[in-house]
Amino acid sequence: MIFSLSDYLSTVNRLVNEWTANNFIVSDSHPSKKLYDSMLYSLNAGGKKVRPTLLIMCYNLFRNLFTNILHPALPYAAAVEMVHTYSLIHDDLPGIDNDNLRRGKPTNHIVYGEATAILAGDGLLTKAFEIFLNSSLHNNIPINISCEAAFELAKAIGPDGMVGGQYADINNSSEKPDRELTDFIHIHKTADFISVCAKIGAILAEAGRDDITRLELYGQKIGLAFQITDDILDITSTTSEMGKTHGSDEKNNKLTYPKAYGMEFSMEKAEKLTEEAVSLLSVYDENADPLRSLATFIIRRNG
Amino acid sequence: MIFSLSDYLSTVNRLVNEWTANNFIVSDSHPSKKLYDSMLYSLNAGGKKVRPTLLIMCYNLFRNLFTNILHPALPYAAAVEMVHTYSLIHDDLPGIDNDNLRRGKPTNHIVYGEATAILAGDGLLTKAFEIFLNSSLHNNIPINISCEAAFELAKAIGPDGMVGGQYADINNSSEKPDRELTDFIHIHKTADFISVCAKIGAILAEAGRDDITRLELYGQKIGLAFQITDDILDITSTTSEMGKTHGSDEKNNKLTYPKAYGMEFSMEKAEKLTEEAVSLLSVYDENADPLRSLATFIIRRNG
Repeated sequence: MIFSLSDYLSTVNRLVNEWTANNFIVSDSHPSKKLYDSMLYSLNAGGKKVRPTLLIMCYNLFRNLFTNILHPALPYAAAVEMVHTYSLIHDDLPGIDNDNLRRGKPTNHIVYGEATAILAGDGLLTKAFEIFLNSSLHNNIPINISCEAAFELAKAIGPDGMVGGQYADINNSSEKPDRELTDFIHIHKTADFISVCAKIGAILAEAGRDDITRLELYGQKIGLAFQITDDILDITSTTSEMGKTHGSDEKNNKLTYPKAYGMEFSMEKAEKLTEEAVSLLSVYDENADPLRSLATFIIRRNG
Repeated sequence: MIFSLSDYLSTVNRLVNEWTANNFIVSDSHPSKKLYDSMLYSLNAGGKKVRPTLLIMCYNLFRNLFTNILHPALPYAAAVEMVHTYSLIHDDLPGIDNDNLRRGKPTNHIVYGEATAILAGDGLLTKAFEIFLNSSLHNNIPINISCEAAFELAKAIGPDGMVGGQYADINNSSEKPDRELTDFIHIHKTADFISVCAKIGAILAEAGRDDITRLELYGQKIGLAFQITDDILDITSTTSEMGKTHGSDEKNNKLTYPKAYGMEFSMEKAEKLTEEAVSLLSVYDENADPLRSLATFIIRRNG
């Protein structure tokens, strides 16, 4: 059977949405009903689900399971998508990037108002940890393993990881593009979180320490390639392909890879990172094909 | 020796600040230095430290230890103060309550700007989970116990707890005060988090299930009394006593206890909750005196 990445992505997409819908149930008369609506609105706004897919692929590398609604890593996959969604909702806020469009749809604060959008982000972030730590949701994953995974998540997305990268991203005031700072931003804002999704998949599968480290590094490389590609697409792609406003990096005076290193070098760098990521997988057999395919997809996508 | 609550509070205050300072170290040239500055600014803005004190008191009820910098519950106490501070920073944002003053000082977004304030809140929330789950910071507390505590924290402060209460608080559009909704807001916005601080203290001390449940209930009662008292003080106290803008509930059209139930009933209710909380402690000896004293302090304070 020929492996299809788009089938894999759409299966994870469907399962994550299904799992979340089953676990986000509040009655119509509940005082927080609209808060849940706003969280679900952004969760279901049609992202590619790269992070949950990566997490499940890394789990499956060691425990090759049929990916269905009972998959042991699915709650964690849904939770990392919640973290990703929280980061986008806060990123889009009037106080940060002030974006009206995300994934081709009005952003959360445009639909639900700014106060609700702030709280929807806070709620999704907190809910993600609740899911990681809720042993009653876990199917055959020991609590100490979940706990280790949750700790790695917290480190990767906090002030020393994603939030720190995001801070540097919006507070750079350098006139000329600073390469060191650009690297810092890209690694922390984007690669840390993508990398930890790979690492978490391996941790949950109780892979060996070498495997966990290898997949973390694979994740760092594809994560950095992902952000460089995003920067390139922000320049070359149209608004409808991207699903967000074209040229918003320029508008927001962001430090981008093409700005710091030039377009040609950026494209080469993304290619090189992808090759390095794939070559890290050479110790694995065809069970790693989904991860090989995902690495290439990340720099070949057009939106 | 006569027990002094103010000594206890100031000791915890000092230790939490000291622990946090030791664990929030970034170099001056670090790209996220100002993000850390902004988090520390609000952490050190002089709160009463009721939540970390409650957590340590509940721990000490079962493991009567000298409260010093090596106290096993101190990292968790510092972490709940981070959660509390995050909630205040986001609450004060222009998109939510738009408050300029908190604890007598300019709010985070006034000093650091809105974008940094959003991320400072996000960073503090995430860091709190990192601390709960970082076994290398834990002194004699098994990881499964930390994990249970972190799970309870996530439940209490997420969309079914504090964030849900906060949502209902700012999105009530009822013309006449709705008592049921007022109760929902007070329980979830404030009491859930205070209650879980008590519960976490007992969990960390590996108290029995009955003790954990009893302290959780004690926390619910003093938590609700705390919010009712806050509502009363917003009307009766001056801006300088409160450290935040007097009459802001009225300005923001908040559903308050006095508005829903009248001032006299509100004062009686706060007294009654405090009595009930104290009577729950009747099974304990004088080791519970700090908790008895704290319950009374909560309704007697004037700011």
